[in-house]
Amino acid sequence: MERFVIAALVENKYGVLTRVSGLFMRRGFNIDSLTVGETENPAFSRITITLCGDEYDKEQLINQLKKLHNVKSVKHIEKNQSVERELVLIKIKNSTHNRSEILAVTEIYRAKIIDYNLNTICIAMTGKPSKINAFIEIVRPLGIVELCRTGVVAIERNGNILED
Amino acid sequence: MERFVIAALVENKYGVLTRVSGLFMRRGFNIDSLTVGETENPAFSRITITLCGDEYDKEQLINQLKKLHNVKSVKHIEKNQSVERELVLIKIKNSTHNRSEILAVTEIYRAKIIDYNLNTICIAMTGKPSKINAFIEIVRPLGIVELCRTGVVAIERNGNILED
Repeated sequence: MERFVIAALVENKYGVLTRVSGLFMRRGFNIDSLTVGETENPAFSRITITLCGDEYDKEQLINQLKKLHNVKSVKHIEKNQSVERELVLIKIKNSTHNRSEILAVTEIYRAKIIDYNLNTICIAMTGKPSKINAFIEIVRPLGIVELCRTGVVAIERNGNILED
Repeated sequence: MERFVIAALVENKYGVLTRVSGLFMRRGFNIDSLTVGETENPAFSRITITLCGDEYDKEQLINQLKKLHNVKSVKHIEKNQSVERELVLIKIKNSTHNRSEILAVTEIYRAKIIDYNLNTICIAMTGKPSKINAFIEIVRPLGIVELCRTGVVAIERNGNILED
């Protein structure tokens, strides 16, 4: 089992997302995260999927996605030829006991405090998924109140684009 | 027409996402972005939806989501009581003409260069959606090769949590 990142360019139309996610269900694909965001062209959205599976699962998902209506292009984003990032928002209990620890960890990880009140501190951190996992484990003992990850986005390092 | 942010906590099971996105299609909701990411509890994912519509659309979406199987809780995240962030990766043409401009804009916006090669420069920026929109318009004349947004994640400022 490996983790794959698949990116797809889809037309911004009702029903595209349903067809895509219907595919996951029918085939029983094990999806870790999914993001659907705008691109530089308002007519298209970009879907990024992280999938746990083997080579066969990956090929299946790509081929099935390509067959869907309104899906313009699909690509496996190879790990060693791409940059991956994710964003997490974490709300932690604010108490005199853990405050200095929170501030230290935030600085070490180059995270940002985006809200501070008497009860909670909210932190935003952007990084590779592995860095985010590590950060979460470090702050977990400090008392996570709420946590929200965007899911992975990835882009190829070279001049290649998804439309290729 | 207003922009609403809806967050839902759903069980990590096959088919939840299909039911959620099937709902968008059947009701014709105008979804701007969708993120599905892990939470601090591996049994649950958090879905964040940004929706353009009126008060009636918002209530409809929340009520319909609540009826779905495996959806644990649903909440409208109010703009003035929450923090919203989004992440964008942008790949821009690298040429002697635009390089210094790219570096200047990146610094001003506190963005990060995450890849640099002879043909392209890849930038990551985290911020409010409006800041990301502004950044994209500034770099657009420099030659966007590829662009990928995660969609919005949002968290309430106070000690409230989604399970409430």
